[in-house]
Order: sequence, then C-alpha cells, then structure tokens
Amino acid sequence: MSIEDNIRKVIPYVPGEQPKDKVIKLNTNECPYPPSPRVFEALKDMDWERLRLYPDPLMSELIESIAGYYGVKTTEVFAGVGSDDVLSMCFLTFFAGDRPVLFPDITYSFYDVWADVYRIPYETKKLDEDFMIKAEDYYAANGGVVIANPNAPTGIGESLDLIKDILDHNRDSVVIVDEAYIDFGADSALPLISEYDNLIVVRTMSKSRAMAGMRIGYCFGNEKLIKYLNDVKYSVNSYTLNIPSIVAGKAAMEDREYFETIVSRIVKTREKTAKALADSGFEFFFSDTNFLFVKPPEQCPASYLFEKLREKGIYVRYFNKDRIKDRLRITIGTDEEMDALTDALKEITG
Amino acid sequence: MSIEDNIRKVIPYVPGEQPKDKVIKLNTNECPYPPSPRVFEALKDMDWERLRLYPDPLMSELIESIAGYYGVKTTEVFAGVGSDDVLSMCFLTFFAGDRPVLFPDITYSFYDVWADVYRIPYETKKLDEDFMIKAEDYYAANGGVVIANPNAPTGIGESLDLIKDILDHNRDSVVIVDEAYIDFGADSALPLISEYDNLIVVRTMSKSRAMAGMRIGYCFGNEKLIKYLNDVKYSVNSYTLNIPSIVAGKAAMEDREYFETIVSRIVKTREKTAKALADSGFEFFFSDTNFLFVKPPEQCPASYLFEKLREKGIYVRYFNKDRIKDRLRITIGTDEEMDALTDALKEITG
Repeated sequence: MSIEDNIRKVIPYVPGEQPKDKVIKLNTNECPYPPSPRVFEALKDMDWERLRLYPDPLMSELIESIAGYYGVKTTEVFAGVGSDDVLSMCFLTFFAGDRPVLFPDITYSFYDVWADVYRIPYETKKLDEDFMIKAEDYYAANGGVVIANPNAPTGIGESLDLIKDILDHNRDSVVIVDEAYIDFGADSALPLISEYDNLIVVRTMSKSRAMAGMRIGYCFGNEKLIKYLNDVKYSVNSYTLNIPSIVAGKAAMEDREYFETIVSRIVKTREKTAKALADSGFEFFFSDTNFLFVKPPEQCPASYLFEKLREKGIYVRYFNKDRIKDRLRITIGTDEEMDALTDALKEITG
Repeated sequence: MSIEDNIRKVIPYVPGEQPKDKVIKLNTNECPYPPSPRVFEALKDMDWERLRLYPDPLMSELIESIAGYYGVKTTEVFAGVGSDDVLSMCFLTFFAGDRPVLFPDITYSFYDVWADVYRIPYETKKLDEDFMIKAEDYYAANGGVVIANPNAPTGIGESLDLIKDILDHNRDSVVIVDEAYIDFGADSALPLISEYDNLIVVRTMSKSRAMAGMRIGYCFGNEKLIKYLNDVKYSVNSYTLNIPSIVAGKAAMEDREYFETIVSRIVKTREKTAKALADSGFEFFFSDTNFLFVKPPEQCPASYLFEKLREKGIYVRYFNKDRIKDRLRITIGTDEEMDALTDALKEITG
C-alpha cells in the first residue's frame, strides 16, 4: 500500500488558453461585448459589507429571475458555477447506474472527462459524415444520454424532432441537452420539460450573456430531477455561487433588450464572416452558435494556420483529434476582429 | 429499469440558516467585521468589462499572493470555492481506495456527507470524554484521515505533537488537517508540509478573513499531492473561482494588519464572553476558534435555550446529535452582540 493506491488519477480537460497579452481572442467562445450595464449598476449598488456573511444557499434571487424570464417554476431551476459545474453535478447525480452513458464521438470534450473522474461507464456514438446525430444510435439500453445542441465544436444545431425522438426512446434514463449556444440558433428543448420527466436542459451565462468571468450556469428539469440534483449539490458544497455572482446573474437576466441586441449583433457578424470565409475557399456547415468550425483550403492545413494566426496575435482553437484535425474553431468577435481575422487568413493562405 | 435506478441518492449536509430578517446571527461562525477595505478598493478598481472573458484558470494572482503570505511555493497551493470545495476535491482525489477513511465521531458534519456522495468507505473514531482525539485510534490501516484542528463544533485545538503522531503512523495515506479556525488559536501543521508528503492543510477566507460571501478556500501540500488535486479539479470544472473572487482574495491576503486586528478583536471578545458565560453557570472547554461550544446550566436544556434565543432574534447553532445535544455552538460576534446574548441568556435562565 502507498498513497498512490488511494489517488484518483485522471487526465483532465484542457481549456482554451487565457493569454495575458493583448491578442485577438477567438479561441474560447466568449462574447466580444461586455455584460449588460445593469450588471455593473447592480454590483456597484450592492452592500459589499455583506461579503462577511455566507451567500443565500438557495440563491433565491437568481433562481427567481431565471424562472421568471423563462416562465418556469423556481423548483424547475438549478444553478451552478458555470454550466461546467451544472453538467458535472448532473453527471454525478443522474449517471450513477452501471449501464453506459451515450454521447457523440465529436462533441464537448469535457463529457468523457466527467465520465472518467466519476467512474461512469460510457460509449461514444459516431456522428455521420455531415457531423449529424443518428437518433437510432441512442435507442440502445443505456445509463443516460448527453446531447450538445447546437453541438460543439461543429456548431451544428439538430432539430427538435430528433431530440424528441431520443427522449421518447429513453424514458428510463436522463437525457441531458446541453444548450450552451442555443441563443445563437436552433430550437430549445426547454418547452419539453413539462412533457418529459427524463429531460435536463443546460444553459450558461458565459456566452450569450457575456459573463464567462462570473461563472454562472443553470439548468431546467422537472421538480423531481431538480430535487435530486440539489441533494447532490448540497452534499458537495452548500454555497457554490458567491454573492456577486447571484447579484450579477439576476441583473443580467433582467436586461432582455441588451441580451437580444448583442446576440443579434453576433449573429450578423457570423453571417458576414461566413460569407468572407466561403469566398476565400473555406468549407463549413451552417453554424447555430457564436463560432464557425471551418476547413481551410487544401494547401493550408488547419494546424499550420493555427500556428500562423497565433504568430499574428490571433488565437483560435485547434483540436488535434480524429475526424476534426483538419478544422479550426473560430469564435465570432466584433466586426473589427473578424475583419482582422479574414485579412490575416488571406495573407497566410495567399 | 427506471430513471430512479441511475440516480445517486444522498442525504445532504444542512448548513446553518441564512435568515433574511435582521437578527443577531451567531449560528454560522461568520466574522462580525467586514472584509479589509483593500478588498473593496480592489473590486472598485477592477476592470468590470473583463467579466466577458473567462477567469485565469490557474488563478495565478491569488495563488501567488497566498504562497507569498505563507512563504511556500505556488506549486504547494490549491484554491477552491470555499474550503468546502477544497475538501470535497480532496475527498474525491485522495480517498479513492477501498480502505475506510477515518475521522472523529464529533467533528465537521460534512465529512461523512462527502464520503457518502463519493461512495468512500469511512469509520468514525470516538473522541474521549473531554472531546479530545486519541492518536492511537488512527494507527489502524486506513484509506485516509481527516482531522479538523481546532475541531468543530467543540472549538478544541489539538497539539502539533498529536498531529505529528498521526502523520507518522500514516505515511501511506493522506492526512487532511482542516484548519478552518486555526487563526483564532492552536498551532498550524503548515510548517510540516515539507517534512510530510502525506499532509494536506486546508484553510478558508470565510472566517478570519471575513469573506464567507466570496467563497474562497485553499490548501497546502507537497507538489505531488497538489498536482493530483489539480488534475481532479480540472476534470470537474476548469474555472472555479470567478474574477471578483480572485481579485478580492488577493487583496485580502495583502492586508496582514487588518487581518491581525480583527482576529485579535474577536479573540478578546471571546474571552470576555467566556467569562460572562462561566459566571452564569455555563460549562465549556477552552476555545481555539471564533465560537464557544457551551453546556447550559442543568435547569435549561440546550434545545429549549436555542428556541428561546431564536424568539428573541438571536440565532445560535444546535446539533440534535448524540453526545452533543446538551450543547449550543455560539459564534463570537461584536462586543455589543455578545452583550445582547449574555443579557438574553440571563433573562431566559433566570
């Protein structure tokens, strides 16, 4: 026996770089615009001396504002330290059986990491040639299903019919639909939570609400699932969101207009960028997200382009992984940033 | 098969109440004084637009300030969302073997909750009649040891010799020393991390640094243990502390003078309160913490006193648990709050 025998050894998820220098940062799907001015006002006005006290463990103000915004019950909402915390708690709570959890081979690369750390058996199902899900892959007996919709890093949204099909074939296991990017496209499964007691819909404030630095994620599901999720959460950490997060999250939810403005601006920039890249010989599927997953022209391998862009101070994401190593994931920034990107690409690809 | 078969069912930890009304709150060991003024300045001066970006996943600024303050290497420091998050990650990382983890029967009541949620086998060892640890209880083969020093809710600090004795007898398992209250008394095991590669020392900013609302905890250990801990943390959530936490935590560490002032003020109030309670017939052991664990005079059962104080708007903590149900845990507040408490106690006990 040694200490080593008792240690959980894992290969962690590697997040995109957070460079400290001034660069054009198109590598982690952050929002190019600041959070709503209401967030700053709320933080400025809060009683900072209250920081000596623990936060409200129920995060009532935040949960109520989320429930109000989406027209669901507060008992159907759960919140955590980013959608990563929410998803991690979901894996721990809902995937405690012996059967394998199913998710696509190309998807958010944290899913297999959570499965490994919590020792959850899993199987990946191959997306088709167009990176689309085949619903029948998820008909087999399983311990749960995870679908990112729209998917990452492909950017492709699936139809609600496909989601329903998977839900219908899995009434005995929890289906998590990870909607981190839903505000930029595709139809949300949220209206289905009252119909399906096996559905969890996950969201984040890191992308469309421009608050990656605040770490706020949330999810929806029927009361019973949310109760189980809270039991596990309260068995891990009584108080997860700190007071500023609760205050900022509430303020962000209350500014629908600002949210809609920045989302539509990003979508517009995405379409403009897509056109420019298509003109330069890049291939890609239609994106429902705040990024494009592009295949550069033949003469210019993705890994080479990644390095060259980096030398020019433009950070994008490259996954050295089977089936997608010929592509780059490029976050949609401001119009100016995307102009700089397309100019740089033209220069490099000649 | 049903959804229920895949769900992790647990009995969560129940934190002390966070009442929304104006009460004298002596139930969750918070600091009665606000955080350092430097915390407010740092938050006021920070670039709030940065919130659109993810935090530094390495939390370098915070880790460096903690390492600098305590004179250890940055590779010997880990930080999380309160010491609960740090402890939870430690349980997950270091207690992955089959042998039972050992901790006292009377201690922080989250330890068995973490063991349950992560399905870690454990055994509790009975404290002696004076609520002291018997070192030899921890000589048996085990998968790890957890000692809160000073202990909660007893408030009693153990000697460093006892800690060393336990460390010496457990070179093959990780010994976690949870020092949430160490700044109020007892000797820290921190200097031992270079000598013992099986030691983790856990701290929090929720008590002596007056920032329960910010959720910042940290721990120390040799580089190898901290590396394993980070691997697991990065397998659960890439970014745990949000940007305001990193900024506030750094500022709090930099104000040694304020920290020492409020700690010594609390210790002075504790001694004054202890004297008043002893004069009123309350029994207790010497406290090394920011609370007193008191046994009321015979005619006045603890549970009754708890309710009566509550009626008067004074919240203390009562644990309806074997061996300690005749006691109350009372946080040390300001002098004024403690005067109000002792007056109320006199009134109730007659």
